[in-house]
Amino acid sequence: MRTPDQYKASLRDGRRVFYRGQVVEDVTAHPVLGIAVEHAALDYAMPHDPAFRELAVSAHGWSRYFDLPASTEDLLARSRLIEAGTRQGKTVVLLVKEIGSDALFGLLALAPKLGPEVAGRVRALYERCRDEDLAMAVAQTDVKGDRSLSPSQQADPDLYLRVVERRSDGIVVRGAKIHTSVSVNANELIVLPTRAMTEADADYALAFATPLNAPGLSMVASPYLGTVHEHAAEHPLSGSHKMIETLTMFDDVFVPWERVFLCGEWQLAGELARGFVEIHRFTAISYKLPLVDALVGCGLLAARVNGLERAGHVRDKLSWLIAYAETLRALTQHAATRCKLVNGVAVPDTLVVNIAKLQFAQGLHTAMQYVQDIAGGLLVTYPASEDLEHPEYGAAIRKYLAGAGGTDGAERLRIMQLISDLTAGEYAGYHTTLAIHAEGSIEAEKLTILAQYPREEAIGYARWLAGLPPR
Amino acid sequence: MRTPDQYKASLRDGRRVFYRGQVVEDVTAHPVLGIAVEHAALDYAMPHDPAFRELAVSAHGWSRYFDLPASTEDLLARSRLIEAGTRQGKTVVLLVKEIGSDALFGLLALAPKLGPEVAGRVRALYERCRDEDLAMAVAQTDVKGDRSLSPSQQADPDLYLRVVERRSDGIVVRGAKIHTSVSVNANELIVLPTRAMTEADADYALAFATPLNAPGLSMVASPYLGTVHEHAAEHPLSGSHKMIETLTMFDDVFVPWERVFLCGEWQLAGELARGFVEIHRFTAISYKLPLVDALVGCGLLAARVNGLERAGHVRDKLSWLIAYAETLRALTQHAATRCKLVNGVAVPDTLVVNIAKLQFAQGLHTAMQYVQDIAGGLLVTYPASEDLEHPEYGAAIRKYLAGAGGTDGAERLRIMQLISDLTAGEYAGYHTTLAIHAEGSIEAEKLTILAQYPREEAIGYARWLAGLPPR
Amino acid sequence: MRTPDQYKASLRDGRRVFYRGQVVEDVTAHPVLGIAVEHAALDYAMPHDPAFRELAVSAHGWSRYFDLPASTEDLLARSRLIEAGTRQGKTVVLLVKEIGSDALFGLLALAPKLGPEVAGRVRALYERCRDEDLAMAVAQTDVKGDRSLSPSQQADPDLYLRVVERRSDGIVVRGAKIHTSVSVNANELIVLPTRAMTEADADYALAFATPLNAPGLSMVASPYLGTVHEHAAEHPLSGSHKMIETLTMFDDVFVPWERVFLCGEWQLAGELARGFVEIHRFTAISYKLPLVDALVGCGLLAARVNGLERAGHVRDKLSWLIAYAETLRALTQHAATRCKLVNGVAVPDTLVVNIAKLQFAQGLHTAMQYVQDIAGGLLVTYPASEDLEHPEYGAAIRKYLAGAGGTDGAERLRIMQLISDLTAGEYAGYHTTLAIHAEGSIEAEKLTILAQYPREEAIGYARWLAGLPPR
Amino acid sequence: MRTPDQYKASLRDGRRVFYRGQVVEDVTAHPVLGIAVEHAALDYAMPHDPAFRELAVSAHGWSRYFDLPASTEDLLARSRLIEAGTRQGKTVVLLVKEIGSDALFGLLALAPKLGPEVAGRVRALYERCRDEDLAMAVAQTDVKGDRSLSPSQQADPDLYLRVVERRSDGIVVRGAKIHTSVSVNANELIVLPTRAMTEADADYALAFATPLNAPGLSMVASPYLGTVHEHAAEHPLSGSHKMIETLTMFDDVFVPWERVFLCGEWQLAGELARGFVEIHRFTAISYKLPLVDALVGCGLLAARVNGLERAGHVRDKLSWLIAYAETLRALTQHAATRCKLVNGVAVPDTLVVNIAKLQFAQGLHTAMQYVQDIAGGLLVTYPASEDLEHPEYGAAIRKYLAGAGGTDGAERLRIMQLISDLTAGEYAGYHTTLAIHAEGSIEAEKLTILAQYPREEAIGYARWLAGLPPR
Repeated sequence: MRTPDQYKASLRDGRRVFYRGQVVEDVTAHPVLGIAVEHAALDYAMPHDPAFRELAVSAHGWSRYFDLPASTEDLLARSRLIEAGTRQGKTVVLLVKEIGSDALFGLLALAPKLGPEVAGRVRALYERCRDEDLAMAVAQTDVKGDRSLSPSQQADPDLYLRVVERRSDGIVVRGAKIHTSVSVNANELIVLPTRAMTEADADYALAFATPLNAPGLSMVASPYLGTVHEHAAEHPLSGSHKMIETLTMFDDVFVPWERVFLCGEWQLAGELARGFVEIHRFTAISYKLPLVDALVGCGLLAARVNGLERAGHVRDKLSWLIAYAETLRALTQHAATRCKLVNGVAVPDTLVVNIAKLQFAQGLHTAMQYVQDIAGGLLVTYPASEDLEHPEYGAAIRKYLAGAGGTDGAERLRIMQLISDLTAGEYAGYHTTLAIHAEGSIEAEKLTILAQYPREEAIGYARWLAGLPPR
Repeated sequence: MRTPDQYKASLRDGRRVFYRGQVVEDVTAHPVLGIAVEHAALDYAMPHDPAFRELAVSAHGWSRYFDLPASTEDLLARSRLIEAGTRQGKTVVLLVKEIGSDALFGLLALAPKLGPEVAGRVRALYERCRDEDLAMAVAQTDVKGDRSLSPSQQADPDLYLRVVERRSDGIVVRGAKIHTSVSVNANELIVLPTRAMTEADADYALAFATPLNAPGLSMVASPYLGTVHEHAAEHPLSGSHKMIETLTMFDDVFVPWERVFLCGEWQLAGELARGFVEIHRFTAISYKLPLVDALVGCGLLAARVNGLERAGHVRDKLSWLIAYAETLRALTQHAATRCKLVNGVAVPDTLVVNIAKLQFAQGLHTAMQYVQDIAGGLLVTYPASEDLEHPEYGAAIRKYLAGAGGTDGAERLRIMQLISDLTAGEYAGYHTTLAIHAEGSIEAEKLTILAQYPREEAIGYARWLAGLPPR
Repeated sequence: MRTPDQYKASLRDGRRVFYRGQVVEDVTAHPVLGIAVEHAALDYAMPHDPAFRELAVSAHGWSRYFDLPASTEDLLARSRLIEAGTRQGKTVVLLVKEIGSDALFGLLALAPKLGPEVAGRVRALYERCRDEDLAMAVAQTDVKGDRSLSPSQQADPDLYLRVVERRSDGIVVRGAKIHTSVSVNANELIVLPTRAMTEADADYALAFATPLNAPGLSMVASPYLGTVHEHAAEHPLSGSHKMIETLTMFDDVFVPWERVFLCGEWQLAGELARGFVEIHRFTAISYKLPLVDALVGCGLLAARVNGLERAGHVRDKLSWLIAYAETLRALTQHAATRCKLVNGVAVPDTLVVNIAKLQFAQGLHTAMQYVQDIAGGLLVTYPASEDLEHPEYGAAIRKYLAGAGGTDGAERLRIMQLISDLTAGEYAGYHTTLAIHAEGSIEAEKLTILAQYPREEAIGYARWLAGLPPR
Repeated sequence: MRTPDQYKASLRDGRRVFYRGQVVEDVTAHPVLGIAVEHAALDYAMPHDPAFRELAVSAHGWSRYFDLPASTEDLLARSRLIEAGTRQGKTVVLLVKEIGSDALFGLLALAPKLGPEVAGRVRALYERCRDEDLAMAVAQTDVKGDRSLSPSQQADPDLYLRVVERRSDGIVVRGAKIHTSVSVNANELIVLPTRAMTEADADYALAFATPLNAPGLSMVASPYLGTVHEHAAEHPLSGSHKMIETLTMFDDVFVPWERVFLCGEWQLAGELARGFVEIHRFTAISYKLPLVDALVGCGLLAARVNGLERAGHVRDKLSWLIAYAETLRALTQHAATRCKLVNGVAVPDTLVVNIAKLQFAQGLHTAMQYVQDIAGGLLVTYPASEDLEHPEYGAAIRKYLAGAGGTDGAERLRIMQLISDLTAGEYAGYHTTLAIHAEGSIEAEKLTILAQYPREEAIGYARWLAGLPPR
């Protein structure tokens, strides 16, 4: 298995990355992107760390992320690994192995329907990623233009990624994907369709893999959360941990056939899109656990340092936060308990996973509201860490910010900065937005819940209660 | 195991029951109480019904309700049995074995702390109930007077049940319990303390068992839900299924020592009260499942007969209802998965059970609101079932109440009456009130959640995130 | 102005009313319908009561309900009158003048578009109702069948009320209306379209007035809330106050042209439907005030008798209840403040009225949940009032139900029965269902809010904030 | 009236201000604080701008902010002025006249209780501020230490501001205030007590005014929101508009008696604290209106550019947002309508103001959640504005970010940056935190609502409904 250094070296491959209108020569050396690289490198450090080795390394010697889950126990172990990694990342998911293995499992589960040749290509990709211990990104969401229109109905045909040429040795694709996480610091990009397609959209039914330095491929990194490291002390989480999302543009990129998994088979686009998402949502609810635990912990800690542990409304909010976090944990584990095998891949219960994701997403803003309530206005009016050091008035700040139970002002300031980072600043907005839109939107989760539930059975029960015959 | 007839016969024992200011000579023959007897008798019919025998009968030949749960599997089987019984009762729990066995398990789990002699009494009670297949009620909630005062602080010393005389052969108790379910149709009444006590309240630290025809014991049955059977067609659920609650008065009732489990040991009152409640809440969340399933089923059915299955807001509400119901189911099963053994009794995870109960209670009013929304105003303006039969205009009613997909007016009327019973009438109010107050109130659940959660661990995590040392 | 007795006498006119499959010979003498008559008669008693005369009687000597509102002050006075009447009705609206005058105002406001002849018919109806001090009902909601289909698309053409014959002297109509309130005890029935129509639905674009004893017209009264008077002591509100809703069937009813306001003019159907509803919703939010006040008062009273006034969670719920009730009151008054004149009729601000209605409807279930929470389980387990009188145990009940601050058990029982009536039994379900569906559904209110808001102006503001030019 | 330049010049007075551990020599020239100065200067520009002159200038020739409101109309005009100023400030309140005049009105309303001499001092301060057109800050919130303890119970006696010496010519004060808005760019600081005091806390019952360059007074500015101007294009609101909050430390500051309003009169501390806050909350709800309007406008605009205007769930969220914003507007105006005179000052209805503030605070997180939902993930993954200008790929970004209805990619990017600033980044966190804690916390508002409501009247109504006599 690769070391962090080997991983970093692999990223210096001539990839075309832009940041704030500038070319990035070396992502590992960039002041902002470099933080994302260091963060992702934790996924390469854990297998070499005795504290995590057992969890992070497969019995086969490769990363456990590449172990195909075949049972509840496998899923629970995978979930624990994701959770442990995200805790190492201080509530920021590492993702460079998580999301790619989700995509590989999704492709493997669909393989029988793809035909033997394509199934072989999938298998080959899986083995190469596994054996070379690659970092992977997944590009799924298209830019979409007018969301009320299908791909082929858009004013500009390139608003969903499409095949523009089929050649004997491969295909040429054009278009752009958006919200592509960890693309600047992955080795392999797996591209999947974003939705079900009709026959008219056949050219948009595309799935393939490509190296990130492929000619014509360029990535424009988002500057969001790009300045917090300048004052890292005020951002105990986001100041030194981050993911980078890109607008990923394909300017007639060539993909050889051995890396193409779907090209025109519009009937399978929806199933592949959902297949990946359903597996990936289990990763998502696993990596949200360190976040919701942090909200609970911060609520409890703020109550303590503010002297509010006995206040009725504070206890009410704390019990709500605990119920919120532990419901998510229980649903995550229960989804693993109720998994089912699809072509050898243990897929967590789709209904429970989506309910977990929905409960998380619907409650996160309220959770942040409650923690802000307990913490107080200092979240947005705190003095700077530099002020603590000032020879003239630093001591006064320590004195005046002192909290309950002998909490020193410097400690209280640090706690308030943590909670500000978690619930008020850019990092909070990153999480609230991701809660709604990442790994499928809230609305998509509702549709899945409705689709997965045994509705006719429930209607039959209601009819029986009414004394009506089955229908 | 007893038959329904044997069970009914056992209730004609001279017990002192009042209903609307009248003495009830025979509860089995009373027009209202008799319905509760028939309903509870389902708990005695199921073991003799091939469809339920395996679930309802223990390997030892007694009712499975008396099997001490020793594992996750035992708890899941018990939960399934409770759920099946409640479905037979059309969303009304049967309870005459459920609640009593919960109390017995709570006493058995506490037995080591009660001393060998009392432990023997507990064991004897358990074996007698089990071997004689008795129906049991539990009286826990005192009338309480001013709830801001402790038992000994009340204006009237009898506002909590207390011992007024200790004799060589037993004790004499005075006071009253309230909200005592199934007491009019049980064989044995198990009396437990309602809360933790201080030394000043030692006379109130009482636990014992008594037959329901004990001299001085009288029960005043609540008339709530006492008229719906007069128009049973309009109340497909509550018209023929019911529980009876009583104000249970102890006018210097004598209890021999061999039936006394606590008398003055105030230090144990709280633990016994909680011990029972924690086990009983698992029963509670199990028997809520047929109710929440009914809400989902009714929502789906109403959408169908009203022609609203494609409406956006209806789909939104349906997905909410499903998430609500299935979260409760998942948490219930997960609580069994995470059980722990206490003196040989598998106790479901207290934190998860309380979160389940809280989520149920906090969402029930909204669930009813959504089902009402999908169903329509007919819930409270429907014509009578008798109107359907009228030679002159009955056919017109059928015609005008017709729904989507060829639903006949009579069928639609029946469905609306079901949903009215479930969400609008007295039975709905029964459930919404029980959700808040039964098996411990919402506020008690919040306190338990706060108490059970590993708070110091969570605070330690938050401090680590802040870069602060453990404290 | 008529007296209650004159009003009652006017109802013995041969109208065809059915209740539970039986013909009702005289609605004033019927055990259930008679309660509704007595209740509505309060609208005829108030003008003769010195306490209400100034509010209830117009300067012109007729009922103030017939005063065309022409200003904010007029609307506020009308609102106060509706509120006072509903308080007299113990939270049940009187309605026999309220709803009909709303319909008359809606017709008068639309008169210029109806043409001079029809405008004259409207004026004549208004003057007759006013001068003869008539009780009026309004039939608007059709039975609708499959709600995803328009009137002309239904499987049965009669599922919306329609004209089946146009004669020289009038028209013949067939079909049925549902949820028609106070029809059994009104003198005049005003029939309005329920929705906008297309040309294909022209035969369904109908508005007219008819006496309630017209040949072919029959009313089937709902039995909902039809038994509570049998135990009136347990239902302090609904036991002696009620409205009756009917399924109102038109079996080829003849309507002379001088009473027809719309017949085929499909372009005006939507405007008339909305015009009435918008005015009527102001009546609705006015008559909800005594209900929400009752919820606040009951919450406060329950907290007091239970000794819970200092409990943190109780204070939290009480402040929520107050904010809920007073927001509704403020919005109601503000809607009057921002009224605008339409053809001489002061129409309350539509946006504010709909927001008020929506806030009421969205919060009512929660309000009931909170009051139930403060009140306790006695809401559904209380003993009967008859028990209080029993020579043997009546005193014991008084003793054991005693509350805080010296509250006697009989008083506490009465309070619990009030709150049970208000939040748990059939009457509670009546209100929760009406909140969602009456006077236009929640979903209709949302659409109106969206339609009434100055959206382009808001978008322009957002663009300006973004630094973008107007578009 | 002063010009912006005169205002700015007045701030160069030797005040002691620190930012990030550095002395700030001239706040008007500081890269961060200077933005706050420019922003506040809008309050000095509006009177000279023909578009605002009528609203901003009193009939007496001074700033309308100094007009003592004596009627509903005065309050509505004041509210409109605050709203107009905040709109000019792109949803950031200007505050340098708003908050100080609130404090002056609060002091004037209390003047009769302060005695004639102190009343004269208050009057003198008011006239000087008015005639010299001063910018004012108010320091109210103490640092508080352990919030469960009163001022005199704290471990360190300085954790609430206190008098340490009474001299013949004045007093000497020590301690610190926190969350002091606009102090770095005001001329006069008005200091008020933060809560009711007991006799033991008499030394903490302090109110006075002081110039901001008083010896011993120092201000430590918060760095929160201190970097957004570096990328102003990504922060259309906060990039060029801001307030500064300080930790305001009093190191034995001398205050002459003619500027002291309270010193030891502990009985009046609570009334003065509340008196100011109640008036100031009306300012608060007025200046929240441009914020909630922006949320509605952004929701509508995002729906349009994303092509989502017809989606059911989007329309649902939009109607919620409108109801949220317009309820706040209606309550604000209604509070003015129901004002009452206190010593010549029209004080808006306290109950309605607090309900408005509570409704705003409780809904803001949800409002942001809904706008984020409609806007999409771009809020936190957008490319940089600099990318648009890049010769190589700028055009591609325009192409790929194109939205519905011909929206250009650059325009869509700008809109997403606006919404990100408003709902996701530091500025969003500033508003969500202020909603909970500024101008009195949510919990304080609940207590006020409970205190202001006519509770006995409501209980009397409930008793009457129950048929019980008054008590």
